[in-house]
Amino acid sequence: MSVPDADAYREFRRDLHRHPEPAWCEFYTTARIVEALRERDLDAIHVGRDALAADERLNVPDAGTLEEWHDRAAAAGADPDLLADLAGGYTGCVAVAERGDGPVVGLRVDIDALPILESDGDDHVPVAEGFRSENEGYMHACGHDVHATIGLGVIDAVLGSDFSGTLKVFFQPSEEQVSGGKPMADSGHLDDVDYLYAVHIGLDHPSGEVVCGVDGFLAVRHFLAEFSGESSHAGARPEQGRNTVQAMAAAIQNLYAIPRHADGPTRVNAGLVGGGTATNIVPEESYIEGEVRGATTDLAAYMDRKARRVLRSAAEMHDCEVEVDLLGEAPSATSDEALAAVVGDVAGDVDGVTSIVDRDDLGGSEDATFLMQAVQDAGGLACYVGVGTDHPGGHHTSTFDVVEDDIALGVDVLARAIRRVAEERP
Amino acid sequence: MSVPDADAYREFRRDLHRHPEPAWCEFYTTARIVEALRERDLDAIHVGRDALAADERLNVPDAGTLEEWHDRAAAAGADPDLLADLAGGYTGCVAVAERGDGPVVGLRVDIDALPILESDGDDHVPVAEGFRSENEGYMHACGHDVHATIGLGVIDAVLGSDFSGTLKVFFQPSEEQVSGGKPMADSGHLDDVDYLYAVHIGLDHPSGEVVCGVDGFLAVRHFLAEFSGESSHAGARPEQGRNTVQAMAAAIQNLYAIPRHADGPTRVNAGLVGGGTATNIVPEESYIEGEVRGATTDLAAYMDRKARRVLRSAAEMHDCEVEVDLLGEAPSATSDEALAAVVGDVAGDVDGVTSIVDRDDLGGSEDATFLMQAVQDAGGLACYVGVGTDHPGGHHTSTFDVVEDDIALGVDVLARAIRRVAEERP
Amino acid sequence: MSVPDADAYREFRRDLHRHPEPAWCEFYTTARIVEALRERDLDAIHVGRDALAADERLNVPDAGTLEEWHDRAAAAGADPDLLADLAGGYTGCVAVAERGDGPVVGLRVDIDALPILESDGDDHVPVAEGFRSENEGYMHACGHDVHATIGLGVIDAVLGSDFSGTLKVFFQPSEEQVSGGKPMADSGHLDDVDYLYAVHIGLDHPSGEVVCGVDGFLAVRHFLAEFSGESSHAGARPEQGRNTVQAMAAAIQNLYAIPRHADGPTRVNAGLVGGGTATNIVPEESYIEGEVRGATTDLAAYMDRKARRVLRSAAEMHDCEVEVDLLGEAPSATSDEALAAVVGDVAGDVDGVTSIVDRDDLGGSEDATFLMQAVQDAGGLACYVGVGTDHPGGHHTSTFDVVEDDIALGVDVLARAIRRVAEERP
Amino acid sequence: MSVPDADAYREFRRDLHRHPEPAWCEFYTTARIVEALRERDLDAIHVGRDALAADERLNVPDAGTLEEWHDRAAAAGADPDLLADLAGGYTGCVAVAERGDGPVVGLRVDIDALPILESDGDDHVPVAEGFRSENEGYMHACGHDVHATIGLGVIDAVLGSDFSGTLKVFFQPSEEQVSGGKPMADSGHLDDVDYLYAVHIGLDHPSGEVVCGVDGFLAVRHFLAEFSGESSHAGARPEQGRNTVQAMAAAIQNLYAIPRHADGPTRVNAGLVGGGTATNIVPEESYIEGEVRGATTDLAAYMDRKARRVLRSAAEMHDCEVEVDLLGEAPSATSDEALAAVVGDVAGDVDGVTSIVDRDDLGGSEDATFLMQAVQDAGGLACYVGVGTDHPGGHHTSTFDVVEDDIALGVDVLARAIRRVAEERP
Repeated sequence: MSVPDADAYREFRRDLHRHPEPAWCEFYTTARIVEALRERDLDAIHVGRDALAADERLNVPDAGTLEEWHDRAAAAGADPDLLADLAGGYTGCVAVAERGDGPVVGLRVDIDALPILESDGDDHVPVAEGFRSENEGYMHACGHDVHATIGLGVIDAVLGSDFSGTLKVFFQPSEEQVSGGKPMADSGHLDDVDYLYAVHIGLDHPSGEVVCGVDGFLAVRHFLAEFSGESSHAGARPEQGRNTVQAMAAAIQNLYAIPRHADGPTRVNAGLVGGGTATNIVPEESYIEGEVRGATTDLAAYMDRKARRVLRSAAEMHDCEVEVDLLGEAPSATSDEALAAVVGDVAGDVDGVTSIVDRDDLGGSEDATFLMQAVQDAGGLACYVGVGTDHPGGHHTSTFDVVEDDIALGVDVLARAIRRVAEERP
Repeated sequence: MSVPDADAYREFRRDLHRHPEPAWCEFYTTARIVEALRERDLDAIHVGRDALAADERLNVPDAGTLEEWHDRAAAAGADPDLLADLAGGYTGCVAVAERGDGPVVGLRVDIDALPILESDGDDHVPVAEGFRSENEGYMHACGHDVHATIGLGVIDAVLGSDFSGTLKVFFQPSEEQVSGGKPMADSGHLDDVDYLYAVHIGLDHPSGEVVCGVDGFLAVRHFLAEFSGESSHAGARPEQGRNTVQAMAAAIQNLYAIPRHADGPTRVNAGLVGGGTATNIVPEESYIEGEVRGATTDLAAYMDRKARRVLRSAAEMHDCEVEVDLLGEAPSATSDEALAAVVGDVAGDVDGVTSIVDRDDLGGSEDATFLMQAVQDAGGLACYVGVGTDHPGGHHTSTFDVVEDDIALGVDVLARAIRRVAEERP
Repeated sequence: MSVPDADAYREFRRDLHRHPEPAWCEFYTTARIVEALRERDLDAIHVGRDALAADERLNVPDAGTLEEWHDRAAAAGADPDLLADLAGGYTGCVAVAERGDGPVVGLRVDIDALPILESDGDDHVPVAEGFRSENEGYMHACGHDVHATIGLGVIDAVLGSDFSGTLKVFFQPSEEQVSGGKPMADSGHLDDVDYLYAVHIGLDHPSGEVVCGVDGFLAVRHFLAEFSGESSHAGARPEQGRNTVQAMAAAIQNLYAIPRHADGPTRVNAGLVGGGTATNIVPEESYIEGEVRGATTDLAAYMDRKARRVLRSAAEMHDCEVEVDLLGEAPSATSDEALAAVVGDVAGDVDGVTSIVDRDDLGGSEDATFLMQAVQDAGGLACYVGVGTDHPGGHHTSTFDVVEDDIALGVDVLARAIRRVAEERP
Repeated sequence: MSVPDADAYREFRRDLHRHPEPAWCEFYTTARIVEALRERDLDAIHVGRDALAADERLNVPDAGTLEEWHDRAAAAGADPDLLADLAGGYTGCVAVAERGDGPVVGLRVDIDALPILESDGDDHVPVAEGFRSENEGYMHACGHDVHATIGLGVIDAVLGSDFSGTLKVFFQPSEEQVSGGKPMADSGHLDDVDYLYAVHIGLDHPSGEVVCGVDGFLAVRHFLAEFSGESSHAGARPEQGRNTVQAMAAAIQNLYAIPRHADGPTRVNAGLVGGGTATNIVPEESYIEGEVRGATTDLAAYMDRKARRVLRSAAEMHDCEVEVDLLGEAPSATSDEALAAVVGDVAGDVDGVTSIVDRDDLGGSEDATFLMQAVQDAGGLACYVGVGTDHPGGHHTSTFDVVEDDIALGVDVLARAIRRVAEERP
């Protein structure tokens, strides 16, 4: 195979951009990635069930939704045989290339999209250049289309070099719901990884800027609390109701009032709530979809314990029941200094890099931390790298986009870092 | 014209039952009623804008929804010319028959349906006999199809008698939202009414039982409170949000805690609430659709004042805004003893009547009270009559139905009462 | 003995008025009543432990408080031997006079005072005439000094007549805390009572007006909820606290939000609350002293169940404990028509009676209802009578007072009613 | 004058310990300090009004309380003329010694005690050695008696050396309420200070350990919110009340729920709350004494703005009024590296110092920060020094005590640092 040129990568990214898919529904995306991987000289491509600890998946959509996206992927031209392997939400894949002696070096990229309606403004490049989302209401508004493309590019660049060792690229599903990291971390494919990089485009850094080691990942847990009570006529029989909206309100008030913790920042949010059916009916059902976070995994666990206590007691207070499900989670993590230093060293040699930032805080959450933690727990090193780009809209907004030239820059930085790490074994 | 037989009334009722329409969307229903009225020997038929004080309508659906139902009515075969008059949600009509000297006697019936999915069980008569709702998700689950039919039947029975006076039958839209009573009460058509009856089928009374005077109407106000704040990232910038879900929760807690009132029963319900977009976003929008009630109009006003204070302060507490709209309302009312006594007198002569109950409490709300109050304020008398029926499911449930023979019984009771009232002028 | 004149009764009342004593501390009051009873020709005087089911007493003050009031009574000149019988809060007494064949007719009066600072205004009669409270901070602000005096007067009037039967007068302690009614009702002395009257002065009725049967007693339960948690430094270790003030606040919000009940009026109040020690300490202790009421005993029980659920869940929500103690209670009750009718009959013959009201609602609570219920449950009749008086200040205010001539009027009404009841056995 | 020996300092400290006085009532304490200062060779002693910007005092007790403590100080033998200067709560003093050319170096110590009942256990040294608090219920439980003594000791040690410059020692009142720092900082006496040290004993550091620079001061604001509404009978007229306990509860719930801030730690506490009078009265009055804090002055200001909004809206929600008063405050501050380094340098030479800690976080609040900030804002340097001691009980507990030998150690460290600073002008 010949190394693709920049046009090929751009076309690949735009193809993914046109077909954004939400968590566990990345059927077209995975199929297209696997098709591309098959054109490469790889030793193994683990797909779907073989790429994940399938039982660890959380918040998988219902069968109808999965089927709908599956059909849509088929209609968009994805390989039917590949799609068959992915059916049921077993998306994502792992590419493995063994190139003689040397350490196992991994790269993790994520591949899912967001339920955001993409801008149709003429000044939005995907509109102007004809690759706006074809899945109306969904959008690659966080650059995962770029990440997947970087994954391919790094394979090409590393395999085209004198790299000695084993390269593994993890194309992870369901990052936006922080529910894909754990199944991939527990898949077994991380067990022998000595060094792991993860990468993110943008993050409010401009084109030309590289962040060698990103930290400040807040550990997070997403939950869904569903309250059930009993309806009654609000005028005729208010006392016969068991009012889930009262339970929900008591829970919300007290969730936000969970005591602050002296050991570090904590967060809580009741981000999506609802309940009831009509003005004159005591509400029988309600729900809170929310999250807690902490600067450390322990702090997030503290918040989670407190939140569950609040939810349970609020239900009981109004004679209701509540079921609390974990929708997603991610631990905290820290980028290892040694791997970050390698990035700093190689980035200076990369065309287009104009600014090298040693460290920066994410200030949010990411489930790459599961993979980083798995590697670090086994004695390896891990590092999360930021590749700047002049993005016109913020992450998770309808006008997010990237400068496509920064794809090559990202590939170059990461491929050099991977090669250097394999040589130097820091 | 010849007086229709029971079959004709049953067919009419079943036609309406097949085409349930929600508040202000009673296009097919109104059209079919008007078509039927045109077959009668009436002096006036006021339709739509002519039947209502149009500016007093509340909670009218948006243009798209109105158009959708309008189109559906057309597709179901309603007269296009009639439909044209109703476009924009000007539904309902008033039938007037002048029959010489005598008082003006009115009958009020309501015609709208509910957003309830009708049972498809084989033991549900509308299924078994083929007149289940064709507007999936909507249902005549409170018997307004029967009420409209009784309205026609009473016209036939009264005009076929030696009645001397003026008969007015009010086919009122949007009772379920308590937003049709006021526009009809303010239409001018009530101004000269000396005696007004209103009628309801069922109300947990069995077939053969007549309630001469229903009381215990709770005055009610429905409101929609829409909170607006500002979103922010719940992990990275919690302090930049202006959290409408917190505002909503504080409001709910304190709405239910409005002090009880020594003068009589009060009610409050936050029946339908929601807010937010995603677990990790501080919620920018939320709403409460709710109601307050009181045993008297003053008590409902007390609750309304308190509720608005709570809503306003809860918004302010979290630096949000709130807009509170009135969606519907109805005052309290009392059935006049003299008119109830007439019902008691005549009911004994009606075939099938096996039990006569002088008084009963509704324990809920009804905007017939606006019409009753209008008549009473002008020096007339008003009375709300209950006609029992063995209804298998409760009102507002998916298996509600009536014994169709009770339609004739209801017609007979009311027609006799109207004739007696015209004679005796109590 | 000779029947005392009006001056003697006035002096007796003023003596009690000068020595107001709170619940379970009516040492001086009981001693003075017993001394007065001993001057009458009675068959039995049951005092203290013999007058009450002592184990049913609730909310008895601590030993120190009891001793303080006991000493004060001694210092004021109460008989030391009598006081010895009352020590420990066994106050109140029952007088019994057997006068041949006939039914057992009872009269219940209450004797305790309130923790209210009596007015020292010159226009306040007790000031002007020199019988203002000598127990600073306590006051007969509800007329129980008058009730005790009426009790004596009725004994004199009935025993001075041709009454045939048994008369029992119940001098009940601790009405203001609704904790004296149950121990007296369960004392055994009510078991053979055929007819029971209770009496209250004032109640916003003017001098000359008699209310034959008072109804509308709200059943009530007073509770004390004590929350315990764990303190911590609010700046350094907020997460180590278990915050009882948060628990208390959640409880208060949700207590007031207990759903209204369709069966009748309910009430709830968190009347006295507190918690914490200093601004910078997470509060370890808090409490709510409150009450629930209902138009019926069942409605009060409904509120009580809901309140306990709220208190328990609010504690649990913040990882605290709560202990809820019953401080007092009273059921609802209804005055029997037959006894009220007797009052109406005899009142017309009483000098000074200018208005006879058949029925009125109390709108509050009273634990005479325990005694009424005991008699009614055993097949007897009971009735609560109101004797009007022009009271300058409202009940439970610092300027409450009575027109002393109305004492004789009350005695006359009740003595006549008791004699008539004994004759007619209605 | 001859330099006092260790016994003299111990006696001085024990005298203060026997006479603990709360904020703005440090009459005896100030008088004794001034008497001791008058025995020294000083250039100025500013007392009371001359030591403070008197208008900046917050949370001064009422006249009766001030008078009571004033009388107690007189009874304990304080100089009547001195006391006259302090009357009205003008406590504290500033000592000034000019010793030729050189910078102005300040030392700030605090002098007030706490409302804590001192242990009477035999193993509590002040009991065993006879200097337990004679002001029952008050205690030097944070070592300010030691601080004042160190102030004297440092004067002696510096003036007994070849120090060249001006020494100012600030004996500050009312630190425990964080309301004495601002009036002293604004007194004018800080304006020419080039270098300022402040000192605290203990802080969970053992005897022999010195903390060169303490940081981590949370900025703080104490507030008192007083709600006023309207009482009514909870049974008869619940709707006529304007319920301040409901307002208070809504406020508490929402105070704790003020959004966390991404810029750093924040705190909030409703530390002391109460309301109402009796179970059956809708509560007319309630209050919250609380505090907010932040890692920076801006963060505390953020919390303060949010808290006031919550308090105001909670009052309005229940138709009540609220008045919010500032009781005390302190900004955040940072110890200057240069001054901390001097402490580290000299501490190694001090007998008994076994451990030198460069930096530690207080994790609480202190209004020495007002003085530090005043000096730093004017271009000077400031540093807060910790002197360890094996304290048996924690700060603010009834068994707190110090190892008295550590007084000399603290004096030595600070006197050496002050002399070094004057020489080296870092």
